[in-house]
Amino acid sequence: MELISSSKAFGGSQRVYRHDSAVCACPMTFAIFLPQQIEDGPVPVLWYLSGLTCSHQNVMDKGEYRAAAAANGVAIICPDTSPRGEGIPDEPDNWQFGSGAGFYLDATQEPYAKNYRMESYIRDELPALVSQHFPLDMGRQGIFGHSMGGHGAITLALKNPMRYTSVSAFAPITQPSTAGWSRPAFETYLGPDETTWRAYDSTALIADGHRLKDLLVDQGTADGFLQEGLRPWLLELACVQAEIPLELTMREGYDHSYNFVSTFMAQHIGWHARRLLPG
Amino acid sequence: MELISSSKAFGGSQRVYRHDSAVCACPMTFAIFLPQQIEDGPVPVLWYLSGLTCSHQNVMDKGEYRAAAAANGVAIICPDTSPRGEGIPDEPDNWQFGSGAGFYLDATQEPYAKNYRMESYIRDELPALVSQHFPLDMGRQGIFGHSMGGHGAITLALKNPMRYTSVSAFAPITQPSTAGWSRPAFETYLGPDETTWRAYDSTALIADGHRLKDLLVDQGTADGFLQEGLRPWLLELACVQAEIPLELTMREGYDHSYNFVSTFMAQHIGWHARRLLPG
Repeated sequence: MELISSSKAFGGSQRVYRHDSAVCACPMTFAIFLPQQIEDGPVPVLWYLSGLTCSHQNVMDKGEYRAAAAANGVAIICPDTSPRGEGIPDEPDNWQFGSGAGFYLDATQEPYAKNYRMESYIRDELPALVSQHFPLDMGRQGIFGHSMGGHGAITLALKNPMRYTSVSAFAPITQPSTAGWSRPAFETYLGPDETTWRAYDSTALIADGHRLKDLLVDQGTADGFLQEGLRPWLLELACVQAEIPLELTMREGYDHSYNFVSTFMAQHIGWHARRLLPG
Repeated sequence: MELISSSKAFGGSQRVYRHDSAVCACPMTFAIFLPQQIEDGPVPVLWYLSGLTCSHQNVMDKGEYRAAAAANGVAIICPDTSPRGEGIPDEPDNWQFGSGAGFYLDATQEPYAKNYRMESYIRDELPALVSQHFPLDMGRQGIFGHSMGGHGAITLALKNPMRYTSVSAFAPITQPSTAGWSRPAFETYLGPDETTWRAYDSTALIADGHRLKDLLVDQGTADGFLQEGLRPWLLELACVQAEIPLELTMREGYDHSYNFVSTFMAQHIGWHARRLLPG
């Protein structure tokens, strides 16, 4: 791992690292906030997955997570949203596919299958890497994210319930297999057989029997992607039918930006901390 | 005024405006956070002045001021750091002069005297403009800033003690008239007669009889500009000699970035709120 930057913040340390990813077959960059409490022993890990067009940097700059992470003594890891760089197949003019739009899936179609393996990267490679380098308590992990990253967090939690003790999302894409901004990406990454898409769709995973202990979701009512792209009511319906306790709050007047995310960041970190830390 | 963006945040509204500045003879952009409390009547105003290379945007993205501003019910205004744009004289390759480096002074030398009038802009034009458009309590104003903006905040407060009830700074440039990164700019903006520089130097203003009720300063010990550019001990000496109560805290391990500023932002806003709000 190569340390790109390190800066003291809220008593802890905000760092950025780059490493050669075997899974994505390219260098990958991630941000990690280590709270001061790590000096006294392993701390829980909270994974934050970002949305379309973002890298590790957006939430690091605008997410305002460090105060609550420091107060609760949890590490926050913010991965990139896709492989990227020279030699990585991409559609540079398409913000809904390729660089910045990995959708937290393992592509099966060429020429994407070699690099676009964000599910395996987030689930397997990056946890193994960070657990080697930092005293993280990998028995206590939570996951959350924003928009495409909310989709990533919920689907990963549904498929790995023993791994992720807690899960929450800001304005998640709830049913990417039927939304206009994700269907083309799914088809290009996964092929036309839509049954293979179900492993990357929260509502389909729930219909197929996957469960969560509970789930926190916040959604702004002034979010321009609400009606077509996000549609929290689809997740709500799936959770009601599956008896998954969903705490969904519609936040009056909030949009899709980090002004929304940062406003409710401390509440989300508190939700995770109550599930990850001893009472 | 032209509204560039508006986004709900922490119950209030984070906005960016552009307006034609008569003082700077060019369009100027600023950010303003209006807390929810403004719906119930005028709120105090806290001016945040940014550092070299910054615009209104850096602190808006990275300063993490909205939570504390919302909790205390104060508006935060973040002006740009210089005139900028086509037709504005500049040294594009010099980050210590011109665009992003207005030093909160009124230039007297050509060709800068027409546009580089940041003192008059911050002190006169922008307050008059915002007081026309928002229910701000202009009888309750505080000012703070970072680095070059800390210099700006302290010098403006020293010269306008009736205007600014409270003043604080993160890693301020304390004696720009003798620091290597500001002397060339002072000479180009103000000319070689250094007596004219004293109006823009905190330590000189204090030596010349200007006073503050009190002053809060935080400074990181791992700040790369500490020894040559910032030198808080010069301000400390001036304050001791003038019996100005200075609360200076050296923050172990913190650098010059917004990781430092954001860590202590809530404490600074609290300092201002205690002086601006009825007990």
